[in-house]
Amino acid sequence: MAFAHYKIILSYNGTDFAGFQRQRHARTIQSEFEASLRKMGWQGKSILSAGRTDAGVHAEGQVVSFQMDWEHSDEDLRNALNFYLPQDIAVRSVMQVSAEFHPRFDAKSRHYRYRLFCQPVRDPIREVFAWRVWPQVKLDVVNTAAEILVGSHDFRAFGRATRKGGSTIREVFSAECQADDGGYRLDIVANAFLYHMVRRICFILVAIGQGDAKPNLIEEGLESETVALMGIAPARGLVLKEVVY
Amino acid sequence: MAFAHYKIILSYNGTDFAGFQRQRHARTIQSEFEASLRKMGWQGKSILSAGRTDAGVHAEGQVVSFQMDWEHSDEDLRNALNFYLPQDIAVRSVMQVSAEFHPRFDAKSRHYRYRLFCQPVRDPIREVFAWRVWPQVKLDVVNTAAEILVGSHDFRAFGRATRKGGSTIREVFSAECQADDGGYRLDIVANAFLYHMVRRICFILVAIGQGDAKPNLIEEGLESETVALMGIAPARGLVLKEVVY
Repeated sequence: MAFAHYKIILSYNGTDFAGFQRQRHARTIQSEFEASLRKMGWQGKSILSAGRTDAGVHAEGQVVSFQMDWEHSDEDLRNALNFYLPQDIAVRSVMQVSAEFHPRFDAKSRHYRYRLFCQPVRDPIREVFAWRVWPQVKLDVVNTAAEILVGSHDFRAFGRATRKGGSTIREVFSAECQADDGGYRLDIVANAFLYHMVRRICFILVAIGQGDAKPNLIEEGLESETVALMGIAPARGLVLKEVVY
Repeated sequence: MAFAHYKIILSYNGTDFAGFQRQRHARTIQSEFEASLRKMGWQGKSILSAGRTDAGVHAEGQVVSFQMDWEHSDEDLRNALNFYLPQDIAVRSVMQVSAEFHPRFDAKSRHYRYRLFCQPVRDPIREVFAWRVWPQVKLDVVNTAAEILVGSHDFRAFGRATRKGGSTIREVFSAECQADDGGYRLDIVANAFLYHMVRRICFILVAIGQGDAKPNLIEEGLESETVALMGIAPARGLVLKEVVY
């Protein structure tokens, strides 16, 4: 054992966090995770992650990595971390990886899921992890528009590059909306995403599905620098489901 | 319209409440609801309810009633209340009832649902509305024990009377545990419940289902003043689903 490199799959309820990335004076997933690691003797400066989720966004499959001097088994590391981490973050699994592993650069695809349901009145329980929209969305109309996203495109109209001057070209592998649990789930898988890209696309797809926006708005956005509809779906409906390597 | 009596079905996410009943210096469902009604001109002293849920317990079908001078339609009353109520409480429906209607005394049955799932590691998203238990529970063992609850019994070993010196006899109409959404839901329907009764029964049934408690613990409890296992399942797994009149 001793000094090893670890890849960890994390889940968290993003409700009470100011996002993933460490910030001064704000509760973030990175700072809570690093604080727990330090209680276990970790002396690193910073963990790495597959990506930075926004304030309020949840995860079932965030991936982080770090190196650590740990004398016990991987399972012991998982249990020790779950002991120290707050209730709204948990380690799902621990594995050892090579020193070259990088959770962001080595990721082949990310899968985000957005949950929504259609109902005229508020629902305080379902709305914790989903977006309530009304009127009803037409599933086939949403899916016809979502299909246009698939492929390699310049998504600059739908989000911002994750670093200044970075590329805004991304490859979407699949984008599909399905009925689920009395509502809908929109699953988008891509090699990577721009900042706010999933939630802005989701907002537009809902507007199209409700008949409030032109069905070709996605197509138009892919061919220009801006898109006519600038809203963003609330963070609470979004979950980072999985990162594939 | 003018002066009328209203029956309202409420749902709430109990997470951030100190329970249903009004208390000084604590956020409760009753005080938030009455504060919203007052913003709409209500001058009553107190609403009535079907029952008082504990701190952290949720509802999809709590029933409250009050009288009010309201010039508009029932639907307008619902929408106005949903405008004033905080995000974690919502009115599902409004109907007018006779002046004699009492949400507690007229209720014929209450349906509570308890959600749990079996998993060795924590899950920050599912645990918002469910109890994680481990090791695995055996569903058939739980249901064999749950069946014993059905009927009219003295439940004094499983809870406290809702008023001092009150009867501890209740009639359970059904008690059943079913697989649901990768976990289990325990549904109990009774004419009424003692204080903490559902959560204490749930704790015992889980212990029996895990093989940690004798299968005849429910039977023993119904025949005595105390039960050998005094734990209580966490509030976050419990939802008041429906009150039938």
